[in-house]
Amino acid sequence: MNPTPSTPQVITHVAELQRRVHAARQVGRVVGLVPTMGALHEGHLSLIDASTAECGLTVVTIFVNPTQFGPNEDFAAYPRDLQHDLSLLAGRGEVLVFAPDTATVYGARHATSIEVVGPALPLEGEFRPGHFRGVATVVLKLFLLVRPDRAYFGRKDYQQTLVVRRMTDDLHLPIHIEVCPTVREPDGLAMSSRNVYLSPEERQRALAISQSLLMAKHLIAGGTLDAATVTARMRERLTAADLKIDYVALADPDTLEGVATLDRPTVALIAARVGQTRLIDNERIV
Amino acid sequence: MNPTPSTPQVITHVAELQRRVHAARQVGRVVGLVPTMGALHEGHLSLIDASTAECGLTVVTIFVNPTQFGPNEDFAAYPRDLQHDLSLLAGRGEVLVFAPDTATVYGARHATSIEVVGPALPLEGEFRPGHFRGVATVVLKLFLLVRPDRAYFGRKDYQQTLVVRRMTDDLHLPIHIEVCPTVREPDGLAMSSRNVYLSPEERQRALAISQSLLMAKHLIAGGTLDAATVTARMRERLTAADLKIDYVALADPDTLEGVATLDRPTVALIAARVGQTRLIDNERIV
Repeated sequence: MNPTPSTPQVITHVAELQRRVHAARQVGRVVGLVPTMGALHEGHLSLIDASTAECGLTVVTIFVNPTQFGPNEDFAAYPRDLQHDLSLLAGRGEVLVFAPDTATVYGARHATSIEVVGPALPLEGEFRPGHFRGVATVVLKLFLLVRPDRAYFGRKDYQQTLVVRRMTDDLHLPIHIEVCPTVREPDGLAMSSRNVYLSPEERQRALAISQSLLMAKHLIAGGTLDAATVTARMRERLTAADLKIDYVALADPDTLEGVATLDRPTVALIAARVGQTRLIDNERIV
Repeated sequence: MNPTPSTPQVITHVAELQRRVHAARQVGRVVGLVPTMGALHEGHLSLIDASTAECGLTVVTIFVNPTQFGPNEDFAAYPRDLQHDLSLLAGRGEVLVFAPDTATVYGARHATSIEVVGPALPLEGEFRPGHFRGVATVVLKLFLLVRPDRAYFGRKDYQQTLVVRRMTDDLHLPIHIEVCPTVREPDGLAMSSRNVYLSPEERQRALAISQSLLMAKHLIAGGTLDAATVTARMRERLTAADLKIDYVALADPDTLEGVATLDRPTVALIAARVGQTRLIDNERIV
């Protein structure tokens, strides 16, 4: 820990990043990576705190990755405020911020992407074609640029954590993937950089998402083990709050294959739109 | 160089491979990688000799990669003779052979592949859909398993060298890609593991490939700069030998875009079938 809450240093060039990471390794430090798109909130900060607790150097990347946004998605509107992000990182231990521009990550003749099937195919894979290709590509790039020992991801993006783990195993990368719990607002809304898009009225309606996950747990505790019944009740709850549902899925936590009877490990996953804002959330319900 | 021509050690497990590579690095050795599918010939041996001349440890991988073969291609028939390959490697300096089984390279739940567009799209990309995806995937895996400083590829697979270079740059891999000249039989036929498929009569007809590349050079030296004219003459030569042409291309050496007038750097690339055997060859003609 720094004795004084100083703002972390921002690095934009690969050579300088690698010099710093190499220097940390030379003195035996474990290197942690927290990949972010900025617009930091308590969820990101929990990942950073987990990393600084376990690693002698934490590299926080801030890069709004264009390749993981669809053509009609919110790449241009995505919130960007580096100075505010940096102020949130002040005093949080040995943190280095890597904030490259797009040309540093994707050169002019860039032609390579990473395709993951398996856990990347359903749910977000169906509703956001190309999304996980963009995620896997930028995560691999950051893994290869930083070469961390450990990397931290939020459980809120549950399917993403499966995709990243799959890719890491498949490519024999010696990186430990750490998945940290979803951080929620006091009323249950999962922290997300996209929550800033919500009007006060939409913010209220969005609570139906976390509430329907809670409801699923209660139904199961009460003996309802039929997945179709639980899913129908969750959809009713979401629709009653005027949310547009992309999916409500009760699925195997490893494969994301649908579960019919809730007598085995199950994760509930939701994607829904509140006005123009698309939100996702999930909970382990069995 | 070893004083006695001893057969190199064969490693099949990743942990042992990495232990050996790490040990070499610890004593300051440069690590070279020569990825092969076995069935070694003088072309492979020239790559290995280039590596042993420049690197303190050379890892030769022998792995017939299933993902780079199409469903109707020669994966099952591809020549495999590890003992003969090893005998060819005897006494060739500090060489380690990594010959993993398929399950070591592609685990049971494997779901990740590398897609390269750009230089991978035309020519072989059109005639062998999925081929470069398989090549890029296995090369990246070998790069990440071995973590070499240098990797050696034959110019005979010209388009492959462009794809590997593109991927290496795009993924920020600190690996120097070395491309070595095509090795030819005395009569001009490019060395290939697939030449063993040829009957004596096919072997003779196959010479039309290298001869048409030579003819292109002569035409240009004689002042014929129209690519269409040169291509037509090459096709005539191949067809006269009863070869089935996949493509005859005169292309930019970096982008593989077609060249219309041969007043700029140009590579000529041929893929043609002699009976059941598909052969490729290329030469820089301008």
